[in-house]
Amino acid sequence: MSSVALGVAGGTGSGKTTVARAILAAVGADRIAFLAQDNYYKDVAWESPEQLRGYNFDHPDALDTELMVRHLAELKAGRAIDLPVYDFVRHRRTSETRRVAPRPVILVEGILLFAEPALRDLLDFKVFVDTDADVRLVRRIRRDLSERGRDVGDVLRQYMQTVRPMHLEFVEPSKRWADVIVPEGGENRVALEMVSARLEQLLARATPRETLA
Amino acid sequence: MSSVALGVAGGTGSGKTTVARAILAAVGADRIAFLAQDNYYKDVAWESPEQLRGYNFDHPDALDTELMVRHLAELKAGRAIDLPVYDFVRHRRTSETRRVAPRPVILVEGILLFAEPALRDLLDFKVFVDTDADVRLVRRIRRDLSERGRDVGDVLRQYMQTVRPMHLEFVEPSKRWADVIVPEGGENRVALEMVSARLEQLLARATPRETLA
Repeated sequence: MSSVALGVAGGTGSGKTTVARAILAAVGADRIAFLAQDNYYKDVAWESPEQLRGYNFDHPDALDTELMVRHLAELKAGRAIDLPVYDFVRHRRTSETRRVAPRPVILVEGILLFAEPALRDLLDFKVFVDTDADVRLVRRIRRDLSERGRDVGDVLRQYMQTVRPMHLEFVEPSKRWADVIVPEGGENRVALEMVSARLEQLLARATPRETLA
Repeated sequence: MSSVALGVAGGTGSGKTTVARAILAAVGADRIAFLAQDNYYKDVAWESPEQLRGYNFDHPDALDTELMVRHLAELKAGRAIDLPVYDFVRHRRTSETRRVAPRPVILVEGILLFAEPALRDLLDFKVFVDTDADVRLVRRIRRDLSERGRDVGDVLRQYMQTVRPMHLEFVEPSKRWADVIVPEGGENRVALEMVSARLEQLLARATPRETLA
């Protein structure tokens, strides 16, 4: 099977998850194998909340890129993979995995996707969701306060201490590798329709056997 | 007829003309009405080369936006227009015009396209070609030396005096209105295929009557 690997990257709060969801909805989840970089966090060795606060979750080294590259290559070769499931409370990989079957489209989402040459090389089509830094910060504060029950002072501290410097050092420069830059993410209907149109065209060109494989 | 107006903007040397040509080739010139902003330059009143050197060709006021808006609206309404033909040696509109018939796709190209709200509002789908400023300058120098037989000192003077300041003031901020940003312009096959795929999809959805209108 020859499948198309589409990467969606962008900073925290850029709207890349909304973009990925919109593509899933437009193209159909049955034709897409979905891979999120978040599943590939490495185990964090921590004994106290203080220690955890010092950890840099936004550096490429916090992610198991080697495993993710292997998985993406397997899916592209038409073989299923076992996606790691991460425990974001204890900050370690669980013993569980989730089977992901190969599909004509492999949709890959993550902040640091294009910062890794080995991942980049496996992506046929790279979309960077670009949203102004202040808008991204607004979204991040809202999300962390409502969904994660965190304190605003702590969110801002983490933002200034690791999120922002890592964004400037790794995420922002990785935009250069994108084939297309989508401003404003999930609200951008015109861009989403364009990405979906191209995927539909590629899917239509695949032979029926390949589409069903 | 309901036609789709696609705008391609970007700075000098960004590769937007290459992008427009690639779209014309992919979608077919017979299905596209092409409108370049360059045709809408206003007459310049000049008596000496010195006077001409002081003229700002890169400011929105150098262009007859009112006429261009009227023409774009006419084409969208399914009516032919008479495109002005500009004499770039004498810097005035000639008495000639060129008839442009309405087509299912109206492709509009120009540096300052998205800087004008009235033009922006008529564009269904806005692509900004984004290329690093130094690469754009390299292309501009090459073009002006080879095609226009100009002196490098003069090219650089004009670049620093009007091209660059106008780019920073009008072109760069207009990127914010784009639906999609295409890095590297004409060399970007993946992005071009995406734009073409969306146009093909829209054309296929149009009824035969509309397609032929």
